[in-house]
Amino acid sequence: MDNTAVILAQRPQGLPNADDFALETLPLPELAQGAIRCQTLYLSLDPYMRSVIAGNHMGHGVDPGDVVPGEVVARVTESDAPDWPSGTLVRCQGGWQQFSDHDPAALSRVPSGLSRPSLSLSILGMPGLTAWAGMVQQAKVRQGDVVVIPAAVGGVGAMAAQLARRAGATTIAITSGAEKQRIALEMLGYAHCIDRVDQDLSEALARVAPKGVSVYFDLVGDPTLTTVAQQLAIGGRVVLCGLIKDYNGDHKTTGPHPGLWITKRAIVSGLVVYDYEPLRDQFESEFVPLVEAGELIANEEIHEGLAAAPDAFCQLMRGQNTGKVVISLEQ
Amino acid sequence: MDNTAVILAQRPQGLPNADDFALETLPLPELAQGAIRCQTLYLSLDPYMRSVIAGNHMGHGVDPGDVVPGEVVARVTESDAPDWPSGTLVRCQGGWQQFSDHDPAALSRVPSGLSRPSLSLSILGMPGLTAWAGMVQQAKVRQGDVVVIPAAVGGVGAMAAQLARRAGATTIAITSGAEKQRIALEMLGYAHCIDRVDQDLSEALARVAPKGVSVYFDLVGDPTLTTVAQQLAIGGRVVLCGLIKDYNGDHKTTGPHPGLWITKRAIVSGLVVYDYEPLRDQFESEFVPLVEAGELIANEEIHEGLAAAPDAFCQLMRGQNTGKVVISLEQ
Repeated sequence: MDNTAVILAQRPQGLPNADDFALETLPLPELAQGAIRCQTLYLSLDPYMRSVIAGNHMGHGVDPGDVVPGEVVARVTESDAPDWPSGTLVRCQGGWQQFSDHDPAALSRVPSGLSRPSLSLSILGMPGLTAWAGMVQQAKVRQGDVVVIPAAVGGVGAMAAQLARRAGATTIAITSGAEKQRIALEMLGYAHCIDRVDQDLSEALARVAPKGVSVYFDLVGDPTLTTVAQQLAIGGRVVLCGLIKDYNGDHKTTGPHPGLWITKRAIVSGLVVYDYEPLRDQFESEFVPLVEAGELIANEEIHEGLAAAPDAFCQLMRGQNTGKVVISLEQ
Repeated sequence: MDNTAVILAQRPQGLPNADDFALETLPLPELAQGAIRCQTLYLSLDPYMRSVIAGNHMGHGVDPGDVVPGEVVARVTESDAPDWPSGTLVRCQGGWQQFSDHDPAALSRVPSGLSRPSLSLSILGMPGLTAWAGMVQQAKVRQGDVVVIPAAVGGVGAMAAQLARRAGATTIAITSGAEKQRIALEMLGYAHCIDRVDQDLSEALARVAPKGVSVYFDLVGDPTLTTVAQQLAIGGRVVLCGLIKDYNGDHKTTGPHPGLWITKRAIVSGLVVYDYEPLRDQFESEFVPLVEAGELIANEEIHEGLAAAPDAFCQLMRGQNTGKVVISLEQ
């Protein structure tokens, strides 16, 4: 039996291209003792993977010839562990491939009650948990806040916006293009949407947030970070969470002069979602029912088949995705 | 009757020199209706005044020919306001001069029970309030913290160190020279002292704080800010409060890459002491008794006479002060 996989063909320079990846058929070895074999159903594509591919994401890296790593939802197909029988739905670091073998300690159960398992990679998965950690736990978003969210319709942004709106905040999307503007305003309920390509961000922000920005959830780095920071309200909170613009390796965020943080009495905090894994059960208990009841919208962009992953990832890193990018491997 | 004053002779380029200032005798006008005339007893010299002199301190500035501004403790000598009789001790923006006239709304009373009024310019004044705001209110210093304080024996640093130590933290001074090292270790009770000139800060920090820095009270900007930030513990708190190195105008702090704040899960907050004026009564109630009981040391460097102010200020901006710099005008 064989395994279909996408490997890193060469390390991308700057923005990744499809030919930096290659679809290969790999032999599937015997399952090791105590291990669990999983068949990928859905693969999550996330911007931070660009820095993993570059070899410098918080100590994680990947080399040409390796299967591209990534989080997946999978079904157990072969198991040497009685707690994880065949058919169990799990979340794991399966990578861009059809089958992956794991130690049981590396698996998490997909929460029960999901209408589709991809939700545990999007609004109920790492992006959703990130949004909740940033908006609720760190920024402590509340009634009356003016919240700015770049990458506004992506996995993190979409959930962050809905959490902010539910808390009574005014939400401002930064995105690009008519289709994403429509999603931001009509589907995700942003109060305002700024087109970062067609509009001057600084002017547009001054117009829609005349009293300043009270919460900025930075997912992208400069130039957006510095521009929004200049329009913070006194005491504004900034959650630093991602640096999409830097992940391609051809850009270096500096952020604003520290004197600006002083003048603004800003509270700036760094967010790493792994720290919130201990709260995942609490997060799922609260939000699975809300998503299933339709009170929160999972804005997923689903592509069919593993072969679609390279192009979908390249579009993601160009900011051309219109939602949380998920690859479906279901037949 | 005349008034002796120090005026700004010319705007300093880079580090200030004594000839940027001039001692002049000015006529003293009739006191305006409703105003209060104050005779300066003590004048506070503070690093932020360098940026006022440069014309760019949070909207405040001063031009050549103007009396140099500064906070003073003064005695009311002539009053048209019954609540402020002659003899009352006040704190006000008197500037570098013998006499200054004020609207009553611009005066604050020196707290009663002080053994000497200069204390309300040092440990019980703006520097002490700044230290309390940064250490207690913003960093929430606690048992087990490892706290790094640059400008360690100055007005803010000296109080910050004592507050941190009282909370059960380990305190690390960054300073320069044997005399200041002695003051830091013997008088102010720092656990460790790093000489920023003779030692490599990064190496020395790694040695005395092997588990990382949990609180950094930044008063100086780069290069210290970036070097200490690199050795923050996970979840470390950074209070940004001053940029002494930038005030001279020949240096520009950038701070660390925002990605470092993410990796460190840092919490960075900007501090402007004016925001804490509403808490000054609470601050004085708590700390006047402790200072008077000798439980907190006011490390003042007192110079005699207004004519000494320019040299003392120039030394301060070169980091050559050994305590909170105060000019005494008492006869």
